[in-house]
Amino acid sequence: MSALYLIPLPIADLQNAHEFILPQVRQVIATTDYYLVENLRTARRFIAWLKTGRSIDALHFFLLNKNTSSEEVASYFQQIPPQASVGLMSEAGCPGIADPGQWAVKYAHQTGRRVVPLVGPSSIVLALMASGLNGQQFVFHGYLPVARQERISALRRLEKEALQGITQIFIEAPHRNDHIIEDMLAHLRPHTLLCIAAQLTAPEELICTKTISQWQAQKPHLGKVPAVFLLGTW
Amino acid sequence: MSALYLIPLPIADLQNAHEFILPQVRQVIATTDYYLVENLRTARRFIAWLKTGRSIDALHFFLLNKNTSSEEVASYFQQIPPQASVGLMSEAGCPGIADPGQWAVKYAHQTGRRVVPLVGPSSIVLALMASGLNGQQFVFHGYLPVARQERISALRRLEKEALQGITQIFIEAPHRNDHIIEDMLAHLRPHTLLCIAAQLTAPEELICTKTISQWQAQKPHLGKVPAVFLLGTW
Repeated sequence: MSALYLIPLPIADLQNAHEFILPQVRQVIATTDYYLVENLRTARRFIAWLKTGRSIDALHFFLLNKNTSSEEVASYFQQIPPQASVGLMSEAGCPGIADPGQWAVKYAHQTGRRVVPLVGPSSIVLALMASGLNGQQFVFHGYLPVARQERISALRRLEKEALQGITQIFIEAPHRNDHIIEDMLAHLRPHTLLCIAAQLTAPEELICTKTISQWQAQKPHLGKVPAVFLLGTW
Repeated sequence: MSALYLIPLPIADLQNAHEFILPQVRQVIATTDYYLVENLRTARRFIAWLKTGRSIDALHFFLLNKNTSSEEVASYFQQIPPQASVGLMSEAGCPGIADPGQWAVKYAHQTGRRVVPLVGPSSIVLALMASGLNGQQFVFHGYLPVARQERISALRRLEKEALQGITQIFIEAPHRNDHIIEDMLAHLRPHTLLCIAAQLTAPEELICTKTISQWQAQKPHLGKVPAVFLLGTW
């Protein structure tokens, strides 16, 4: 039966990624001809690297990024035979989470196509598991405001919730990592817990949960790496 | 280097689970002697089923469930050689999320042990991906109150947030699935979207996002199966 397969991509360099690819993902890619992808180059590179024996040139790719309208998504599906399966891929990690893939899933639900999510790496979940913070109640905020004063207000609001035991998760554009860390060390309370989870699944993976005052004593410098931040309490 | 490995378990019957086990998980289990586990039988059965060639009798298991105190967790680690790696397993899915595993992770952070989360199935993430609802901002609430009036109030509060575009995710004890569905169909607004994601990764997997009024027209009867519920808007 045809389906929309939600295909997770590795979240670190492809070099070590074989350890993170499920047999199921390989199987789906070996038998799917149509793809909606956030980034053409990443998707083609990933499929080629899997060496399933398929020729990349025989596959059909449609671009689905933050500029794609829901009309365009509909027109993509109209170009795909109804009995054909479709693969959805974001730039990294699980499609539909912190990316624009949800519009394809919405279309599938509205037109009665089966939706099949495949298991793979999610930096949000890996960070939450490894933080040691409350995993029974949590909020994911995506990106915080870019303007400094608004960002500081947002951090303070999140801290209030975090201190009530609801883990607060957010991400930041890599080039702003060290700025947001600076803001947290300057404006949050000494006993609030901050988990920094960076370069997940890479050999350089760093996951560390400490109080703000412990971080102040040993300031982290992440640089431009993918990172997830979590605030909470024990 | 020794570590606390967070080992995800299958979320459906073991029969089809080979497709969901990463090479990495197999490797860690083949070389780890000490385990903190939510359920002894499930953990032993899973390790035996993996057929890594290890004798189950040579492994050491410590029980970490909702009744385990942080003193007990500390005493477990004191019985484990400091250079030995430890595996943490919950009853199903990712340890540390919607389970008591976080206390072991907390201990590891506080004593400077490396924490390594492994990739595996999380029903929350699979449900969110496949719901088509907003994956850029979401809240996981765990279980809602059991008492009916409180549960209805909670559902209404969640609906308000959901209609602002923040996806609301919660779970229910399987024997109460049909009760909570009844409450939602009776008390939420006609255009609110409800995604029901049940038996994820099993052959019977059901994932469907519809408005409350669409669900009212075709009432779902889940029965006692593992399910995740999501409220949101498009």
